[in-house]
Formats: sequence, structure tokens, C-alpha cells
Amino acid sequence: MTQASKKIRLSDLKAFCAQSLVKAGMSEKDARITAEVLAETDAYGTHSHGTVNLANYVKKAKAGGLDIQAEPDVIRDGPAFAILDGRNAMGMVPAYMGMDLACQKAKTAGIGIVTVRNSTHFGAAGYYANMAALRGMVGITMSNVDPNMTVPGARGMLIGNNPLAYAAPSSEKPTVFLDIALSNVASLKVVKARKEGKSIPSTWIVDKDGVATSDPSHYPEEGAMQPMAAHKGYGLAVMVEMLTGGLSGGAMSMLDNIVSWLFEIDEPNRVCHTFIAIDVEQFVGTDAFTKRIDDMVKALHEAPKAKGSDRIYVPGEMEWDRYEKAEDGLTLPTNVVESLEVLHEISGVEINWIVDED
Amino acid sequence: MTQASKKIRLSDLKAFCAQSLVKAGMSEKDARITAEVLAETDAYGTHSHGTVNLANYVKKAKAGGLDIQAEPDVIRDGPAFAILDGRNAMGMVPAYMGMDLACQKAKTAGIGIVTVRNSTHFGAAGYYANMAALRGMVGITMSNVDPNMTVPGARGMLIGNNPLAYAAPSSEKPTVFLDIALSNVASLKVVKARKEGKSIPSTWIVDKDGVATSDPSHYPEEGAMQPMAAHKGYGLAVMVEMLTGGLSGGAMSMLDNIVSWLFEIDEPNRVCHTFIAIDVEQFVGTDAFTKRIDDMVKALHEAPKAKGSDRIYVPGEMEWDRYEKAEDGLTLPTNVVESLEVLHEISGVEINWIVDED
Repeated sequence: MTQASKKIRLSDLKAFCAQSLVKAGMSEKDARITAEVLAETDAYGTHSHGTVNLANYVKKAKAGGLDIQAEPDVIRDGPAFAILDGRNAMGMVPAYMGMDLACQKAKTAGIGIVTVRNSTHFGAAGYYANMAALRGMVGITMSNVDPNMTVPGARGMLIGNNPLAYAAPSSEKPTVFLDIALSNVASLKVVKARKEGKSIPSTWIVDKDGVATSDPSHYPEEGAMQPMAAHKGYGLAVMVEMLTGGLSGGAMSMLDNIVSWLFEIDEPNRVCHTFIAIDVEQFVGTDAFTKRIDDMVKALHEAPKAKGSDRIYVPGEMEWDRYEKAEDGLTLPTNVVESLEVLHEISGVEINWIVDED
Repeated sequence: MTQASKKIRLSDLKAFCAQSLVKAGMSEKDARITAEVLAETDAYGTHSHGTVNLANYVKKAKAGGLDIQAEPDVIRDGPAFAILDGRNAMGMVPAYMGMDLACQKAKTAGIGIVTVRNSTHFGAAGYYANMAALRGMVGITMSNVDPNMTVPGARGMLIGNNPLAYAAPSSEKPTVFLDIALSNVASLKVVKARKEGKSIPSTWIVDKDGVATSDPSHYPEEGAMQPMAAHKGYGLAVMVEMLTGGLSGGAMSMLDNIVSWLFEIDEPNRVCHTFIAIDVEQFVGTDAFTKRIDDMVKALHEAPKAKGSDRIYVPGEMEWDRYEKAEDGLTLPTNVVESLEVLHEISGVEINWIVDED
């Protein structure tokens, strides 16, 4: 049955996800964290990384590709850093632990960095950056992923389009934040153009020979994504590999045959993450810092507009606009609704949709 | 008189620069550091950020736009962080101090971050990232600069194309490193196309209305650079502002009328920098880390090549290739030679060029 988009209260979405995870064998605490990360991500409007994936995470756990009861632990520790081993847990669990610990380290040292190895897909990097920012810190998050990008001079999928996010506290919106992948565009956009039979800009993908193409039909069977801004995006993707897999002693995308968490459902994903928190209170003080960020936001908003433009957005503003709208009930697109219904069938937990009165 | 390109030993270039700076009133120690940073940058082949600028830095000091005798100092300090006030010194001096202090903090805490306010143009960000990497650490460097970029939806120069660099220790070359600005291309490329009467890709600049254009004649009098990868480069430029001017309590490019260090020669530049060092020894150990980086380099080198490509470069490899060639004598392009001759006329210090025997 094809679903239409549906509406749900954010608290009800979290409750459904958490209860479904408990039914699948997860502890209440980890279920609450996982549900929180994914549902908040939907509230920001980043549906591709939100609850749409939960049914597949649960299937992956059932298939042995992740350990829903694993307890990630600290394997090395210092005044301002730590390494966590994710023990192949649900990615949101070691990721949340990672940023939480980075914030604790930052509280005493000024900055804290925690790297995580042996994790799985952690959802949206931006969630964890915002975790720090909502505690009055600057947060930086990154992860490696399975290879899907080429690099200049090469052909084929060689390195992940490794996501990178940051967030800082502000007043007009709760945070200023950015969550990007290091490819020119998300692969979903290529797949969409392909379905619709449209051509794409020649900066999005390369064909099987490693040559730029505007024909989306090359992806994903052959060809690969292009890094954003060519050698710049490539270079930043290498940085993420070094700071995640390199520092943690975990897997790296061009070395260790990291497989898709989704398509190789019974295989460990083994991605690595890094979380950095910076305590602005110890630098210039929280009030002074936030005041400057607010002034920056105002200056950007009030700058002269381009022809045809009536608004300048600051990073994260679109997401917070959507978040505010979601407070009256979150509208989930068709594919998310379908995926949650699949989860309902697996878990038997009811979904408390908002029923329209008209 | 128009100069041709000339050749010089790296040690002689450093000696000439240092002696010229001492003649201009700088301490021997600071002169040695400044000369080191600029000459090494020439050796990497990044001539736009090397000794070509030294005559103008000295002129700026004479015009009162920077204080060649200033002593930058630590104004706040914690286990893993510090804020330096650059006191309007020659940028290389507080920048070198900044990364040096970040490395010291990292040695005890695992990671160290130092932000610098009231500085001037610090040359190439990559130099300082490499400083950390050559000490066995991962280094990350960033700076804000005077506004030269637009942001999506705006017109005019609103934010700097803030440089960002990182480096990590490796074996085949001394480091893996990247040094980029966050615009799609360097402004020099636009100016060059303009001089040659050529059109440019429509992703490089916008015109006075904030609309993408392939006509380079709009820059720099009107119009502005475009951020790399549109909102992604914009978002990263905002991050750099927050981590430099924001954390240090210094100037921000869209707020404080930061002016060009070069064109406003009698004005303080007031840019801010941030230096991060991460001690890999405390994470997985230096040998294990370097081994992984070497394996990564090998995997990238050995990947299948694109049609028409016979080599895949890793970040920093081209620069290290040039560095190795410079060990037999560094060939400086015409504009650098001319600028050094200007400095010779100011300082009276002789330049020990290598005289070709043929």
C-alpha cells in the first residue's frame, strides 16, 4: 500500500522509535538516545538521515550486521581526548557518548576531542554538533563512510564523501550550524535525476573512465561522485579519514573495504567518527561569544541582496525554520511514513499519527 | 628594469630576508622566524604567499600599519587552549607562537587550540599546519581575511575566502597537507584572465548585482568571489570566522571592516587566526598512525587512473615535489625577484643569487 505524507507530534515519533528499539532488544537508555537523534533530525527537515532509516537499522541488527546490545567503551583517555570503541553498536549510541565525552573534556581543558572506531552509520553529523552548541559550546563532528567518490586523476569509488558538521550557540535561532557531505551533491540527487531521465551538471559524477559526465545513468553501478570543488573537497575528505579512522585506529574508506551499512546488511559497517567540543566560556565568555555570533547573523541578514533574492540565510537557519514549524506536528514525507509502517509491522508498536480533522 | 626569474639557495634566501628585517628594526629572533615561514613557502612553490610579500610587509611597518617590534602575548590560558593578542605584529610572529603553543598544549592534553587576535597577514596557512606535522602531530590552521566573497543570496564582498589548512606526518613525503582558500578559485586567477581578456567559468565570481558571470572585468572593482561549492564554502567560511574572530574576541570579516593588509598599508589589518595541534602519539601512537597514513597514500597512488591521467596526487605531494627540487637551488619567478630587489634597495642587504655558469 502506498502511503501519503502524514503528521505526528515529535514526542510521539520519539516514543514510537524508542519503544520499537526496546522491542528489538535495545536497552531503554540507548533506545531513548537513538530515537532522540533520529526524530530531531526529521524535525530539522533532514529526512534522508532521520527515522526513515530505523527499520533498516533494526533489520541490520536482526541480520547480525550490528549489535543492538553492545556497550561502547573508552579504550584510551587523556585530559582533553579519548578513543571509544563502538563495538559495532547502533551508530547513534557511541556517537552520542562521543560528543558527550568531548563536552566533558572541554569543560575542564577548554577543548575536547573524542574519536570513535568500529561504529555504524550515525545519522546526521549535524545532530551531534548541535548537541555541543545547545550546551554553549562550539561542536565539530565528522565521520568516514563507505567509498562513493572518486578523487582527481582516478576512476571508481575510492573515498567516502565524508560528512562534516559544526555548530555554535546563537540567540535568534538556537544555533548556527552546517552539516555537509564533501561530494558536490548528495547521491540522492543523482539517483532522482536518473529516475526522471534528466541530465545533470558535469561536476556531479564521473563515468566508468573517471571522466566528468552529465548522464546520471552511470551512477551508482559504474562511475562515482565528484568531490566538491575538485581537489579541495578531495583534500578535506582525506582530512576526515585521518582524524576519524587514522586517530582512532579504526577503518579507513580507501583501505579497509568499508561497505554500505544499508546494502551489506549482515556486515559490520566499521565507520569511524570524531567529535570536537570547544568551551566558549573559557575563551571570551559565553555572553560575549554569543553576542558576536548574533551580530554576525544580523550583518549577514542585512547585507545587500542579489538580484532576484529577498533573503540571505545563515547556516542552519532553514533547518531551524523547519524545526519551529514541526512544533505543531511534524509532517513526514511518504517514504518516511512507509518506512515507519514497516517498523510498526516488525515491532508491533502503534504509531500515534495526528489525524486531520478536515 | 624588468627582471628574469633567478635562482637562490634556500639558506641564502632566508638569510637575506632575516637581515633585511633586522635592518627594518625587527629582533633577530622574530626576523629568523618570519624569514623561515616565507622562504619555506616559496620552496613549496606557493610563491603568492612567500617572500614576494616581504617588501610590502616592511613598507607597511614603515607606514605604521604594523608594529615590527610588537611582542604578542598570552591573554588567556587553560590546559588545552590559549588566546594570544598579536599586538598588530608581523603576522608570522604571533602565528608561529600560536602553533608552537598549540603543540605544547597538545603534548600534555592530547589536543591544543590557540586563537590569535589583532594579527596581520600570516603568509600561507599550510606552513603552520606543517610545523605541527613535522613534530609528529596533526596540525590545523585557519585565518579570517578581509571580505572578498559574496554569500548565496547576497551581492558585494561580505566575508573572507578564509584559508584553511591541515597537515599530518607521513613517510614517503614528510607530511600530507592541504592549504586552501574557501573561494572557488584564488582571486589572482580572475585577475589573470581579466588581463588576458579571457572569459572565466561562471562559478568563479558574481557581478555587481550578485549574479554569476563569466566576465572577469567585474572583479575586483565591483562584484565578488563565489564561495567554493556555493553554500558549503559559505558555511565553512562562517565556521572559520567563529573559530578565529569569534573565539579570540577579535575582528570578524563581515563586522569589523577588516581592510586589505596590502592596499590599506597604513591601517592595522586585525585578522585573527586559529591553530590546532593533535598529538597522535597519545591516540594510536606515532608509528601506528604514520603507518596508516602511508598505507592510505599508497592506496590512493595505486588506484585505477582516469582516462588521460597517469598519476594520482595526494594532498601536499606537488608541494613536496617542488620542495625537493628547490634543495639544489630555488628558482623564483620574475615578480618575486622584482619584489626582493625592491627590498634590497630598502634594506641595502645583498642578495646572493646563484649565477648560472652557462
